[in-house]
Amino acid sequence: MNIEEKFSKLGVENAPGQEDRQQSDGIEVIGGQLEGAPVDFSHGDVDAHAPIPGSLAQFTEGVTKAGNSQAYTEYRGAASIRKETAEKISDFAGVSIDPEENIIITPGTQGALFLAVGSMIAAGDKATIIQPDYFDNRKMIEFFEAEPIPVELNYHETEKGAGLDLDGLEASFKSGVKLFIFSNPNNPTGSIYSKEEIEGIAELAGRYGVTVIADELYSRQVFDGRDYHHLAAEPSMDPEAIISVIGPSKTESLSGYRLGIAFGSKTIIDRMEQLQAIVSLRASGYNQAVLKQWFSEPEGWMAARIQAHQNIRDDLIKILRMAEGVQVRPTEAGSYLFPKLPELKVSIVEFAKILRIQAGVTVTPGTEFGAQFTNSFRINFSQDHDKAVSAIKRVTTLLERYRK
Amino acid sequence: MNIEEKFSKLGVENAPGQEDRQQSDGIEVIGGQLEGAPVDFSHGDVDAHAPIPGSLAQFTEGVTKAGNSQAYTEYRGAASIRKETAEKISDFAGVSIDPEENIIITPGTQGALFLAVGSMIAAGDKATIIQPDYFDNRKMIEFFEAEPIPVELNYHETEKGAGLDLDGLEASFKSGVKLFIFSNPNNPTGSIYSKEEIEGIAELAGRYGVTVIADELYSRQVFDGRDYHHLAAEPSMDPEAIISVIGPSKTESLSGYRLGIAFGSKTIIDRMEQLQAIVSLRASGYNQAVLKQWFSEPEGWMAARIQAHQNIRDDLIKILRMAEGVQVRPTEAGSYLFPKLPELKVSIVEFAKILRIQAGVTVTPGTEFGAQFTNSFRINFSQDHDKAVSAIKRVTTLLERYRK
Repeated sequence: MNIEEKFSKLGVENAPGQEDRQQSDGIEVIGGQLEGAPVDFSHGDVDAHAPIPGSLAQFTEGVTKAGNSQAYTEYRGAASIRKETAEKISDFAGVSIDPEENIIITPGTQGALFLAVGSMIAAGDKATIIQPDYFDNRKMIEFFEAEPIPVELNYHETEKGAGLDLDGLEASFKSGVKLFIFSNPNNPTGSIYSKEEIEGIAELAGRYGVTVIADELYSRQVFDGRDYHHLAAEPSMDPEAIISVIGPSKTESLSGYRLGIAFGSKTIIDRMEQLQAIVSLRASGYNQAVLKQWFSEPEGWMAARIQAHQNIRDDLIKILRMAEGVQVRPTEAGSYLFPKLPELKVSIVEFAKILRIQAGVTVTPGTEFGAQFTNSFRINFSQDHDKAVSAIKRVTTLLERYRK
Repeated sequence: MNIEEKFSKLGVENAPGQEDRQQSDGIEVIGGQLEGAPVDFSHGDVDAHAPIPGSLAQFTEGVTKAGNSQAYTEYRGAASIRKETAEKISDFAGVSIDPEENIIITPGTQGALFLAVGSMIAAGDKATIIQPDYFDNRKMIEFFEAEPIPVELNYHETEKGAGLDLDGLEASFKSGVKLFIFSNPNNPTGSIYSKEEIEGIAELAGRYGVTVIADELYSRQVFDGRDYHHLAAEPSMDPEAIISVIGPSKTESLSGYRLGIAFGSKTIIDRMEQLQAIVSLRASGYNQAVLKQWFSEPEGWMAARIQAHQNIRDDLIKILRMAEGVQVRPTEAGSYLFPKLPELKVSIVEFAKILRIQAGVTVTPGTEFGAQFTNSFRINFSQDHDKAVSAIKRVTTLLERYRK
């Protein structure tokens, strides 16, 4: 593959956060503007849900007290912060993490995912992805000139787990894939993989010698007191065949600091550090100090944050369900909703542009998550409650205007 | 190439900043310890040479005032900061930079280099590198499964320019390379490319259709009032065939914030943003605000910083030259020295470990910069003056002990 072909598959025009660079020429709108505060559902709003208290103080102390040693950490991250973080995540995920061998600090979980994928597959390999799932999974695999093999998530047809097609997963593993990457809770549907699904993944990975990346970015924000099962803690999962990814960018609103964590296989963590050395050297040194606040939030802070998000979810779902033909599965964990709309007069990419132009509402078209999601869009509802409610009402108003 | 082969070429054990992870088993030392404050010459010391005044205040304002908009910038960086930075760099480098098209903010200049290389070459391509030059240039090219073609720098044999072998460069271009990557001032020798060398590169790149990455990280720290020529400003250089890289991590001591800039070709900058979207999303949002202080330092601050480094350079060279058989070319720009030692009883990698064990001095072995530099090491002399002088005296003491 030459470099032009490689980049022709990496479009970012409709990616979340890039909307300011969109071309909107030729879009014909119906009717007038809808008034209301603009809401950008492409990502959470850290003004509405503030970062963990004390984060900036930790950063400042990193600059002013630790100084040089904080600026220049090992590529895999400062030893003392790895130690502290390894202990906290070991407790959280129910696994054993050696801070010297099994953990790396990265520039955001995006950094962790890129390093993990780049450490596991090379040109010509195959890797299984879920559809729908985080759109960059496919892009990363294609960038490394490997072939993504999609397996469907029947998220509308089940209430038991995420809706994983275990037979499809086995078929893909049989075809010789090296890597399976998935997010749990699923991005964009917000569904949690059941105990049976997690057991099934561990068992199949072992049987076919497949290495797994479990993206657990949103695993602390679980609603309605549901169970959550970490694949890494599954007894039948080979600890050397899994990398789990987590970070404080979402529930904890620390995205502006770009911090992520990967933990698991020593072999892969070693490679990820080798790769980080040529990709970005290290997560910003001073920023790493902010991890001290993570999993050490003030008492009650996380519970309140989860409750606030559960309330927003409930109110948005009520509004969406009042519109005829809209299907939406309630988020079980995380801050995403992935409603499916009835047939429109315009494509979902055009509808997303129309929402921005006519209603000041930014959403991510479903086609970013798989070509077949032509009637869905994703929203991140980690927003100001009242603004989000008003924005979703504007979405349903425009849905009526553009309904086929 | 499978993934194991790919990573076998990416060793980091002897890379700067990774010394804490080294194995030192089996090293036999001669004589006792040398006392003195430890000095880590593998990188600069931001405690000895503090960051630009006001940097932390800009960061804090980014968190507390700009908030959400600072946390989530476009992947290529915040529009207002790109605009400001483009103006300042246009002035500095004598080029025209459109902030919408020709500039991207990255996590450090390492981030900029990785994105640029990854945007220009794919598996099977060839790329010209200089030897000696920044060690990651070779590693990045090999990671993308391309072939590095080395061209020698005769840095000891010339006082006119960096010592580039222009015939060798042309021969490599003739062989069909796509990319030429080089640092100016050269890392590790601290030499500056002359006007004739820069014109030669531009002319050859045009003639053979080669795209160039000019790593100008240290181009603000020029000693003895020398001239410096930006390749991008060379009239015969096609502006669409060059990416220049610069950042505030070195002279300005902002490494802990991980900020870099690439400017140049619109086509390549677009690709770099596509790649950044899957590599790390963006340079840490809050950190980007720190760029406001860059090129806007208090009056006299840069001149004083350059003079302080010139003084350290002079004193270290005096000590090194008192040792028989040591060759060292005075740094023309930047903070590196690359002395060549006489024959030792041990390899340069072993000698580097011995310096750490017996003298508390960390240097980077010459072999990191090319297999042929078996008698050289690199130091970054952006250190406390007195500690650096004492440390280099200890190096020359140990040199006598291990001299063949």
